[in-house]
Amino acid sequence: MKAQEQPASARPVVLTGDRTTGPLHIGHFAGSLKNRIRMQEDHDQFLLLADTQALTDNAQDPGKVRRNVVEVALDYLAVGIDPGRSTICLQSHLPALAELSMLYLNFVTVARLERNPTIKDEIRARGFGRDIPAGFLCYPAAQAADITGFRATVVPVGEDQAPLIEQTNEIVRRINATAGRAVLPEAYAVIPEAGRLPGVDGRAKMSKSGGNAIALSASPDQIRAAVRAMYTDPGHLRAEDPGRVEGNVVFTYLDAFDEDRAALEELKAQYRRGGLGDGKLKARLEEILQELIAPIRRRRAEFATDPAHVIDIIRQGTDRARAITEATRREVVEALGLFTL
Amino acid sequence: MKAQEQPASARPVVLTGDRTTGPLHIGHFAGSLKNRIRMQEDHDQFLLLADTQALTDNAQDPGKVRRNVVEVALDYLAVGIDPGRSTICLQSHLPALAELSMLYLNFVTVARLERNPTIKDEIRARGFGRDIPAGFLCYPAAQAADITGFRATVVPVGEDQAPLIEQTNEIVRRINATAGRAVLPEAYAVIPEAGRLPGVDGRAKMSKSGGNAIALSASPDQIRAAVRAMYTDPGHLRAEDPGRVEGNVVFTYLDAFDEDRAALEELKAQYRRGGLGDGKLKARLEEILQELIAPIRRRRAEFATDPAHVIDIIRQGTDRARAITEATRREVVEALGLFTL
Repeated sequence: MKAQEQPASARPVVLTGDRTTGPLHIGHFAGSLKNRIRMQEDHDQFLLLADTQALTDNAQDPGKVRRNVVEVALDYLAVGIDPGRSTICLQSHLPALAELSMLYLNFVTVARLERNPTIKDEIRARGFGRDIPAGFLCYPAAQAADITGFRATVVPVGEDQAPLIEQTNEIVRRINATAGRAVLPEAYAVIPEAGRLPGVDGRAKMSKSGGNAIALSASPDQIRAAVRAMYTDPGHLRAEDPGRVEGNVVFTYLDAFDEDRAALEELKAQYRRGGLGDGKLKARLEEILQELIAPIRRRRAEFATDPAHVIDIIRQGTDRARAITEATRREVVEALGLFTL
Repeated sequence: MKAQEQPASARPVVLTGDRTTGPLHIGHFAGSLKNRIRMQEDHDQFLLLADTQALTDNAQDPGKVRRNVVEVALDYLAVGIDPGRSTICLQSHLPALAELSMLYLNFVTVARLERNPTIKDEIRARGFGRDIPAGFLCYPAAQAADITGFRATVVPVGEDQAPLIEQTNEIVRRINATAGRAVLPEAYAVIPEAGRLPGVDGRAKMSKSGGNAIALSASPDQIRAAVRAMYTDPGHLRAEDPGRVEGNVVFTYLDAFDEDRAALEELKAQYRRGGLGDGKLKARLEEILQELIAPIRRRRAEFATDPAHVIDIIRQGTDRARAITEATRREVVEALGLFTL
């Protein structure tokens, strides 16, 4: 059955999205965008431009959060997210999510938020120390609002974010218990098979701010330079020497992007034996990345010539999302027996 | 100049309100309602039915919060709040307040919220221990949203709540600093001269749940019984004995409600000298309270015959408040340079 033949409610609802803090890179492509292009075939997929969440650790730089709204939307459209099948929407323009967030904060304790392993890790990673913005500590409740506001049951997340879905479901169970009926569904974390792609410098996290990312809008020269600078096996000095595949960033990227798995296995065997130079290896990766990114860059540039059209896509998606999240809010409020005018 | 001759913007904006957790009592009358009746003459006054805030420590009993929305509105109307001059509005139906709350949480640290003396006291008083609902810890940010959402500059609060206004102003200064201009005004805490009225049993806090309050809807018999049960001076056994005025609940109430100050001073002198029995003293207080409450009870009963009319008053006030708070939200978002569709 094709997607359009199914009633919307029959397709599982999936919520994904990105904080609008920078354009997306090929790490996002491997880890989530590729998956989303597949998901839109048979899911009712919402992509949240998470500008409100981006503010939880960027309140001092709202301009960055603003500028990247259209950048992230361009990345979505460029990789093949189809606004006719996926709903691209802007978090800050969905008041029901803020209202549900404030409500859910009453159904979770401060101690529970502080125990959340994802939050603990991120507080450490960001160096907040004692000066954690309250919004940052509270963002799992806001994420519960996002997920439940769309009635999403499928939530693709990185492995390190699975505790956030558990937190959402705890809130869902408390709301349902207080309401006396299952007004909200629980959600399932879907952890993609592909692990997180390291930076071109081998550091665990690829990020624009870390200067070790290849943007989805990278020019051919930028791609070439990034691949040339990539870490391989520091002990692999001459082509004829045996080399290490594990921890070799070029092979990690080939694992993520080379679709000819047989040829890749052959290449790994040859590298391990000796007789395959880093230059040849990198040439292969560069070719693959150039082929991957070229059409994305082209489509991105096309969409970028007409920002009004992109904003219109966001507006239409947000209008649809507003109606859905407001309907959920109203159901929750009524199920809890709160006053409604 | 009469209020209606001034443009709305020329009158200082005052925000007051009550959590919808129970009907109001004469402690509210002495401490705030009397003041509000005066304020509506020359202020643009908003009375917030704070059902959202009520949930921060009543999430397990949303029905109580719902039922008391109309009860508190009835109390307002009964004491003489004029919906033509004051705006009675329902917090949960003002989405901009939730949106501003979520925004402001990014401009205050968890450590700062935990240091707030009002919050510390209330956490202790409610016996939350480690299980503080996150919404409760965060409510000062929500209160900042309430105050600034209406652009209120005058906020009457109990002495113990003054730190909350300071917290609001800290958030205001951070928002203004980030925006690079004074998009929000600071607010002033106005602490009423009348201190907090003790319960009829002499305990510091009068509350319905404490069973030591006289409701604004109390019947003549309830008033009589409450005054009879009131603590005086335990050492004052016979009318002819000298008695203590300080700490004598009946005199505290007379201080709050007896408008014949000269007669009251004479009464105090007589009591101190000896020769004034508790019965006579209580008869005077009862007479005053009966006279005070009778017209309130009558008006309350009248309004209660037509709940649809009361709800309509709330709806109209909420519509006005929604437009005002939404305009503020938009100004803040634009001043911060966030994305707007």
